[in-house]
Amino acid sequence: MISIVAKFRVHEGQEEKFLKLVNELSEASQKEKGCIEYMLFKDVKKALDYCIIEKWQDQAAVDEHNNTKHFTNIVPQLTEIAEAEIDIYQPV
Amino acid sequence: MISIVAKFRVHEGQEEKFLKLVNELSEASQKEKGCIEYMLFKDVKKALDYCIIEKWQDQAAVDEHNNTKHFTNIVPQLTEIAEAEIDIYQPV
Repeated sequence: MISIVAKFRVHEGQEEKFLKLVNELSEASQKEKGCIEYMLFKDVKKALDYCIIEKWQDQAAVDEHNNTKHFTNIVPQLTEIAEAEIDIYQPV
Repeated sequence: MISIVAKFRVHEGQEEKFLKLVNELSEASQKEKGCIEYMLFKDVKKALDYCIIEKWQDQAAVDEHNNTKHFTNIVPQLTEIAEAEIDIYQPV
């Protein structure tokens, strides 16, 4: 299993666009065969901070995801309206 | 539901102690009534980076967890041997 923690600090005034894009990305990603979990969270303290917690069956599923139309179309738009910090993990 | 992402950068030479402490903390935490998920992950790129991804039923479960013997005993020991970055999230 591979877990990805994608943190975003959204630029001022871009939250609505961010939420729309992530909702679209999340709906499509959850339908992918290798997707175990794909959930958007909001920081309880920091107003513009969000986090997508993802779990994928294996690296092949992650590679497939990274080549999907929804990923290649939406992720670049997200990085224009938010600072992103992506960490990739494996269970211990 | 409340999700906590606890990132740790372990000090050089302290990984074995870190893993022992987190294993103890995780086993006890997973037995708590309000615990949905409590998993330790290792960063696939950064050697000394780890992340605990937690999911709790609600804030009351988190408060209860923070007052348990295993939490109050182990977490201070972890912060002596690792840099910690804790973020608390709610689903969107």
